[in-house]
Parts: sequence; C-alpha cells; structure tokens
Amino acid sequence: MRIDVVFGGAGLTPSEVSGRVVAVIDVLRASTSIAAALANGARAVVPLETSDEVVMRSKALERADVLLAGERRMRPIPGFDLGNSPSEFKREVVEGKTILMTTTNGTGAIASAAGARDVVIASYVNYTAVLTMLRTALRGGTDITLVCAGRERQFALEDAGCAGRFVANVSKRLIGVTMNDAAQTCALIDRRYEQIAKLFEASEHGRALREAGFEDDLTACAEVDSYSVIPLYQDRQITKLGPDRER
Amino acid sequence: MRIDVVFGGAGLTPSEVSGRVVAVIDVLRASTSIAAALANGARAVVPLETSDEVVMRSKALERADVLLAGERRMRPIPGFDLGNSPSEFKREVVEGKTILMTTTNGTGAIASAAGARDVVIASYVNYTAVLTMLRTALRGGTDITLVCAGRERQFALEDAGCAGRFVANVSKRLIGVTMNDAAQTCALIDRRYEQIAKLFEASEHGRALREAGFEDDLTACAEVDSYSVIPLYQDRQITKLGPDRER
Repeated sequence: MRIDVVFGGAGLTPSEVSGRVVAVIDVLRASTSIAAALANGARAVVPLETSDEVVMRSKALERADVLLAGERRMRPIPGFDLGNSPSEFKREVVEGKTILMTTTNGTGAIASAAGARDVVIASYVNYTAVLTMLRTALRGGTDITLVCAGRERQFALEDAGCAGRFVANVSKRLIGVTMNDAAQTCALIDRRYEQIAKLFEASEHGRALREAGFEDDLTACAEVDSYSVIPLYQDRQITKLGPDRER
Repeated sequence: MRIDVVFGGAGLTPSEVSGRVVAVIDVLRASTSIAAALANGARAVVPLETSDEVVMRSKALERADVLLAGERRMRPIPGFDLGNSPSEFKREVVEGKTILMTTTNGTGAIASAAGARDVVIASYVNYTAVLTMLRTALRGGTDITLVCAGRERQFALEDAGCAGRFVANVSKRLIGVTMNDAAQTCALIDRRYEQIAKLFEASEHGRALREAGFEDDLTACAEVDSYSVIPLYQDRQITKLGPDRER
C-alpha cells in the first residue's frame, strides 16, 4: 500500500491516479470553501477552469438555481455572486444551489485527478471526515495520492503542511505502508508547524491573503473539523458523500 | 533579493530564470558526475535530452575526443563509454575529452534553465565552490533560483535536501533576502538530515540505487567539497569556471 504526495496537479501520472483514492488539497482557499458550501447545503459545486466557462455554463441553467463563484488574484470576479472566502458560503446563501466555481489553482488540480477511483476535496476544516475515508480505503488495500494544488503550479507550504497531517495519521497502526519523498517531506512540515496559524504566517500565500485584508479567511481555514463533510468529485461536479450514497 | 527553489525544471517560469543565477541540482547522480568530470580535466560536458542525440552529435566529432555517457533507469546505456557513476569520470579517462551526456532527469532540468544570467551545476561534492559564487551574486543584488531536478519531474528528497543546505547558508549575514515556500521547506529538510548518508537512506532514489548495487556512488555523492569546481552551462555545454574566464 502506498501514500504518495504530488506537488501540483500538472505532474500527475496515470499510475498516481488510476484505481486510487485521490485527495485534492487547496487549503487557501478553494478546498475550504467547497467544504463550507456543501456542509451548508449547496446541492453541488462544479469546478471550472475559467470564468468564461462559469458564465457559459450558468446560461444553460435556471438563474435562481445557480451561484457564480471564484477569484482571480485573490479578488472576487466582477459580476459573480461570490468570491472564494469560506465565510461567503453561508447556509442562507448556498442552500439548494449549484455553485459554478473557478479559482486560480484548485479547479485545475481537481480536473487533473479525473480517472481515480474516488476524488475527494480535503482541507483542515474537514480533516477528520476525510481522514476516516482515506484510512478506510488504505485498510482495504487502496493506494492514496494527495495532490497539493499549490500556487500557479508551484509548491505551496500550506497545502504541503495539510497533506503532511494526513500522511502522519492515515497509516497509524497499519503496517506495510510506503510513501514517496514528497509525503515524507509533508510529514516533516506538519511536525514543524503544529499550529496552523504559524503555518499560514510562514506561507507566501498566507501572507499575501493577510496583506489583501483576508485575515478572517485565514482563521476560518485553520479551524480543524468545523465541517464534517466529505466532498466527492464525480461526473464533473462535487457533491457531499452522504448516507444516501455511502459506499 | 530572492532565493527561490523550484521542484522540477518543467515548472520554471521566465521570472524564475531571467537575469538570475540558476543552480541545477541532481545530486544522485548527474550533478555529482559532472563536477567529477570537470574537476578531473574534461574539456566540457554537453548535456543532451536523449541517447539518440548523444550518438548523432558524437558522429560530428573526432571519436578520440569524445566520450558517450549516460544512464537509463540507473544503468549505463549499451554502447556508451560511461554510465552515470561519479567514480567512472576519472582523470585518466576524461582528461581533455568532451563528454556527451544524457541522464533521466538532470539534462532536462539544465536545458530548462537556459535564459538565466548564469547556470551552474550544484551538488554536495562542489558545495563550497558553488555557495561562494551564489553568495557573491546575491551580495551584488542578483536573485537566485535553485532547481531541484527530481525524478521523472517529481520531487526528490536528496535534491531538496542539498538545495536546503545552500538556502541555509547563502544568505547568512545578508539582510532583506526573501525566499519562497519551497526554499523554506528545503531548509527544513537540511536541518532534519544533517548527515547526508541518512538523507540518501530516506530518499526513494537513494534506496533504489543501493538496491541496484550503486552503494559506492552514494558514498561518493555525499562527500562534501571533494571537488572545488564551478560547472557553468553556457552555449549548450558545461565547462569549468576558471581563472581564465572569471567574471
């Protein structure tokens, strides 16, 4: 059994995806916002590469049923309903809606994982829910790949740190689990930054968000287990893995 | 002033290369073998992407002047003069020769750095020589990028650890130096693995080399400062930065 970490979705090879459970991590902020949206009753989140695609897709749907969401350079996209702050995805806003979302990094990484047995969206806010699913998979003999979305295809400390927390705990009390060099490195980062606030302070993107006035988002993204939800990517949309579709 | 680390040459952007000093690191084993070859009197090392290119290029040169070198899956390429073990690049073999070299990862990363102010080849065996050059550049206001070649475009622990040793020391007693998330992570790895032998034991590629019988190569690649040489990539070949071409 293997636990591998890949930095940046672009480098994913078929052997790192095929038949595996793949967890996509974009802590600041796409993964966190997706967890918030689904926990607060959104019907689905549809990740799209570009804002043009969001607009096009929205035209094919009933306007009252959809929300347009996303960011470019951290800022909400003009004309869209929502940006990429987890706090925007409140129940009174998102319940029953389909959210068409484009973000700088997260959506691309999710798309690159297509072909996996399961693709889940992971972050600190849904840590234990996803960890439980990954442990179950690993116990059943399924290999796991954690994809750190990163920033513009480069390494991001906060995604690696979050991946490291999964690595450190997913194989506890299991024997015969091997991991790649990136997974070892992520575990090292998690040990160095036990406090998530410190991890975000050390990260370039964390600092950029703070400077841009998104301090509250950093607090929200660091709240471990605030949403007990497993977002599952399937048929080009992300929905909540719930009792009605338990596997 | 910046010190940035990039994992895998494929992700290099123009802003990470242009006007910078770029150090390419493929500790196991291309960077080490290149340092050994030049320190032992090779006229030049020409990095090439494929073994076909090596054969083609060799036909345009006097056979007595060239050596064909390289590996595929760690093994020497059939019909070539040399593999990729540093110990093969002895003075009696390489002196005065032009070495046409292809390796799985190193050569691609070197090619991707074209466009930089200077491209140097770095490893543990020429650590202090390269460090001195990088410090001089940084002091003069030139940004630095360390490219970790990695394995098949993926993250390799040994390259990151070596990069981390440069990161940790290149900016000592300099103020106003910023680094990206990857550079911070590399410094963390270097602190964790002060002993290079332990770093190689933890690395997947280090273990693979050991299992394939290249234990001696691991020892050679861990010998800090065994060659006081700065290999400089220019005009598609790597030569020794020496007194006659000091800059």
